Amino acid sequence: MSGEFDFIAWLRSHQRVDRRLIVPIGDDLAALKWDGNNLLLAGADQVLDGVHFDSTVHSPRAIGIKAMNRNLSDCAAMACLPAAALATVALPKGTPIDYAKELFLGLQEAGDKFGCAIIGGDTSSWNGMLALSVTILARTQGSPLRRNGARPGDHIHVTGPLGGSLLGRHMTFAPRVMFAWEHAQSPKSLNAPAASLITSMIDLSDGLSRDLQHICRESSVGAVIFADKIPVHADAIEMSRDGFSPLEHALHDGEDYELLLTMDGMPTEQAARPTHSGEPSLNWIGTITDEPGIFLQSADGRREPLEPRAWEHQF
Amino acid sequence: MSGEFDFIAWLRSHQRVDRRLIVPIGDDLAALKWDGNNLLLAGADQVLDGVHFDSTVHSPRAIGIKAMNRNLSDCAAMACLPAAALATVALPKGTPIDYAKELFLGLQEAGDKFGCAIIGGDTSSWNGMLALSVTILARTQGSPLRRNGARPGDHIHVTGPLGGSLLGRHMTFAPRVMFAWEHAQSPKSLNAPAASLITSMIDLSDGLSRDLQHICRESSVGAVIFADKIPVHADAIEMSRDGFSPLEHALHDGEDYELLLTMDGMPTEQAARPTHSGEPSLNWIGTITDEPGIFLQSADGRREPLEPRAWEHQF
Repeated sequence: MSGEFDFIAWLRSHQRVDRRLIVPIGDDLAALKWDGNNLLLAGADQVLDGVHFDSTVHSPRAIGIKAMNRNLSDCAAMACLPAAALATVALPKGTPIDYAKELFLGLQEAGDKFGCAIIGGDTSSWNGMLALSVTILARTQGSPLRRNGARPGDHIHVTGPLGGSLLGRHMTFAPRVMFAWEHAQSPKSLNAPAASLITSMIDLSDGLSRDLQHICRESSVGAVIFADKIPVHADAIEMSRDGFSPLEHALHDGEDYELLLTMDGMPTEQAARPTHSGEPSLNWIGTITDEPGIFLQSADGRREPLEPRAWEHQF
Repeated sequence: MSGEFDFIAWLRSHQRVDRRLIVPIGDDLAALKWDGNNLLLAGADQVLDGVHFDSTVHSPRAIGIKAMNRNLSDCAAMACLPAAALATVALPKGTPIDYAKELFLGLQEAGDKFGCAIIGGDTSSWNGMLALSVTILARTQGSPLRRNGARPGDHIHVTGPLGGSLLGRHMTFAPRVMFAWEHAQSPKSLNAPAASLITSMIDLSDGLSRDLQHICRESSVGAVIFADKIPVHADAIEMSRDGFSPLEHALHDGEDYELLLTMDGMPTEQAARPTHSGEPSLNWIGTITDEPGIFLQSADGRREPLEPRAWEHQF
């Protein structure tokens, strides 16, 4: 372990203890008691030129949309509804004002889909490259859905096919806000057994292998996933020309922005079937185990440890 | 008018109407009805290398402190108490992890003074320069103090000497959170006439001439300020070697982070006297007028229009 994840561990150990802070650093959003028991959920995420987009390729509208959608996807991951957003934009000197307007309209276009208004922020120009930082404020009913609720025996699902998002989907994905909200609040909509509940959830930004590790660590459990059950996106097949198999792309590529979740019951086949292409649905890929570690089981029954190989920012 | 302020006007005209949004874009913080009539105040501000600090000169601890204090100063400007903050940090590739930790410790050191915990955020590395974005969440009792409440006849005050902050104070200022909170909630603490109230307030980040213009525009009023009443900082005198007078520095330099406020009564001389150096106190500098425009009156009674000359970010 090095870099970003070490740093997050350090941050968590240095965060002030605050009795109002119900969910501290380390989940998709933080949750704060705001008034009595009423919760305020909040998260912040940034998109940087050359890392999350390429300003020589992507339009300012598309960049604004992605900046907002990454944060909306964090709302989906905790099954809460976005309420408002704030954005800061660092513009390279000499950027035309119309470019700044397009960035804002992109942020707004993405937020509008969920009634999420942009309520504040700051725009400055500098000698540096384009950077957008977005903070999202969200509401929940009851408790937010965290990463730490998975239990041995739970079924593991993802909401869509994975891998190869760098071909373009990383800019155009649809955050799974309504799917998460509806199914976390009312699991019966999945036609699952009455007692079944989503027990943990995360959005797939670091890649399946890495994000499943987040859930397993937070929940103190292990997992087995089945190679022939992983839904592989057509983009992963196209990207396999690089020498890594489609399955490897589906397991390790980042920025899918589908949801990875665990349930203590199994949905019926009908609920798990996609209604139409591009819509989220439940794809069963494995099982949470008591034994620590994450294993990939092939069709012939062999299990091997699954090492996270997702991209990690290096300091 | 060009650049940043044009863009803010455009943003305001494009902001979605939201019945929950009590204070929209254009004040120091936005105010949102969160639960019933309970307000959530939120603002976001960034510090960028080469604009707000110089990473070849300033320590990461000092940069983190400034990033947080700029946001805390926005809380002071609306007389509310900071509750929590989120921060995103864009680090140049190859930055040692200890540098990132110092940035965080700077953010935390500044927040700790007001019980403001850092509850979330993101750290990424990129080929760009260092950028920090901070979002602050705050609470208020009753209505937040806005820019738009100044009335003809109100007295104008600033909380300390102005000008020349670029010599160093722009990195080390103390946000006037408690001064604003105590005096806005309980103006009697100023020994002012019982009925006197702070009617509008802003923190001096763009410079006195510019920030007074913000208050006058939002309140649809004018102002006269008295040249011999403006408290001039020793730094403004030192900076006057550049050919601009100390008074010009006090009128137009940015980043003082003192408060500019209007009151409908006059505090006693005792309350207006600083308790000791560096502590905020009320310095009476002028009067709000019915007539539009901002005028500077010299000791011999001549009035001339005061044009804002503060630095403005250019796109």
